[in-house]
Amino acid sequence: MAVYTTLSAADLAALIGEYDVGELVSAKGIAEGVSNSNWIVETTGPDGSGGRFILTMYEARVEVADLPFFLGLLDHLAARGSPVPRTIHDRAGAAFRMIHGKAVALIEFLPGVSLDAPSAAQARAVGGALAGLHLDAADFPGERANAMALPQWHKLFAACGEDGLRSIDPALPELVASELAFLSAQWPTDLPRSVIHADLFPDNVLLLGDKVCGLIDFYFACTDVIAYDLAVTHSAWCFSADGSFKPDVAEALVAGYAARRALSAEEWHALPLLARGAALRFVATRAYDWLHTPADALVTRKDPLDFARRLSFYKAQGARVFA
Amino acid sequence: MAVYTTLSAADLAALIGEYDVGELVSAKGIAEGVSNSNWIVETTGPDGSGGRFILTMYEARVEVADLPFFLGLLDHLAARGSPVPRTIHDRAGAAFRMIHGKAVALIEFLPGVSLDAPSAAQARAVGGALAGLHLDAADFPGERANAMALPQWHKLFAACGEDGLRSIDPALPELVASELAFLSAQWPTDLPRSVIHADLFPDNVLLLGDKVCGLIDFYFACTDVIAYDLAVTHSAWCFSADGSFKPDVAEALVAGYAARRALSAEEWHALPLLARGAALRFVATRAYDWLHTPADALVTRKDPLDFARRLSFYKAQGARVFA
Repeated sequence: MAVYTTLSAADLAALIGEYDVGELVSAKGIAEGVSNSNWIVETTGPDGSGGRFILTMYEARVEVADLPFFLGLLDHLAARGSPVPRTIHDRAGAAFRMIHGKAVALIEFLPGVSLDAPSAAQARAVGGALAGLHLDAADFPGERANAMALPQWHKLFAACGEDGLRSIDPALPELVASELAFLSAQWPTDLPRSVIHADLFPDNVLLLGDKVCGLIDFYFACTDVIAYDLAVTHSAWCFSADGSFKPDVAEALVAGYAARRALSAEEWHALPLLARGAALRFVATRAYDWLHTPADALVTRKDPLDFARRLSFYKAQGARVFA
Repeated sequence: MAVYTTLSAADLAALIGEYDVGELVSAKGIAEGVSNSNWIVETTGPDGSGGRFILTMYEARVEVADLPFFLGLLDHLAARGSPVPRTIHDRAGAAFRMIHGKAVALIEFLPGVSLDAPSAAQARAVGGALAGLHLDAADFPGERANAMALPQWHKLFAACGEDGLRSIDPALPELVASELAFLSAQWPTDLPRSVIHADLFPDNVLLLGDKVCGLIDFYFACTDVIAYDLAVTHSAWCFSADGSFKPDVAEALVAGYAARRALSAEEWHALPLLARGAALRFVATRAYDWLHTPADALVTRKDPLDFARRLSFYKAQGARVFA
């Protein structure tokens, strides 16, 4: 959550002038997104009836070379009916522009609020929306390797070092080593693959009541095992702030998903393992960030142990949870 | 610039339910305000046609006891026609509410963008708006002492210590000591007083083209010398990023002010001294913050020397600038 870069009012007005969205009325930096700077931008609209947009400036963590994939995916999914924001193209048809050496994109503004503690009914709706996303993405021609897949977890933990992990928690090195070995040996290679979101945490879903208004922040989207995306979402949605498992939310999430896209027997069978992988993936990035984020950085570090506890939960209970 | 506090979607929906503004549609934390947490909140509106607001949560720097003054002032000025946001009152008529032990207020959203480099025409409009604010505030019944007046500068510099000031710049202790002595001896006591904004930096003004759409962030507003407010605004608006004086912007600001509220001979005469005071006031708070802000704080420290240079400029050139 940060606005890393300042754009002057003159920069903003000139930029907005490149799009057919009317004139700039208002722009406020918003405290969202860990990898980008974002503004809510209001304009007079192409027909004078007003328009609202998210202006995103891509900072170091997002590769400009990936933007055609990310932004093209939004357009593809929105056209299929998934609740994702469309990319606004400039007058020349470009999905992103460069300003002061950084890429920027103008994105549709969607209503809704992100929840801290979603209900079962909301989890059911999110499961359905995730399944819809997978169905709608099936004929998307773009491909992108998952930069946060198993080989990367090895690298991140290696960069943490055994001592680093132990400084976070004495039991962490052993948990990580045994899980890395287990998952590397068992990771499925024959499950259906497609484009997945890969980071569908509650703060990336906009809801009004039980209705999903928006799936946002696709900057980890990639081509990978479809059921892994459900496992990631499960690991992100089905635990309360104190770490306890929420069985009603979990059942609703999976039921909502399966009602829209049937899971094969192989996918069902793999879910406990995929959930362990999902949990380990967030232990990896959070442990790395915990040890490598300067104390004066503007980014809030997230406790890696939250997901270490979820990992232990899936290890012990996964077979029962996904029965 | 920060959002210090997290409000859950449930908190937000419950809070919005206390106002006659329809239902919550969207809420985004915005990166504005150094003393408060702020959100742009969208609702369905009292009549279903939509509404937009700034929700402000007051953090440590704002005293709850001062809120009736600040929020009552907004209502008073807006009713008189000044371009300031109205306070939205809850169903019981209250201008602010408490949530999780902190005060929150719902404020009208105004269009416009804040400028880094205002033009002379824009400075003229801002001068006029500031004069209008002083005229409209004349019959406001509230009073509030200026917590950032001369006695406070002494305290802030004492808390910095001579060594602290020297660590910022070797020449700073002598400049500060001589100015404190001069201003304490010469500070005017007989100039017209009223409610003043006292912090009208460019980021507290919303403009569209040359039109002032909003004067915002009244959390330093107080009862003090009226012409001092023009001096504060002068010190904040009339220098470029590299520190050089912008005579055309300065002339336009003062002319725009004087066209709407005539300055007495005594006020004209006092302006060079008041501008030295304004510059010293910002040296005081910035030097204090510079030396007392932890390196890992989320607040960006502002260079105290920017205003030390402006102070030296006013000392040397003030009589000519305000001739």
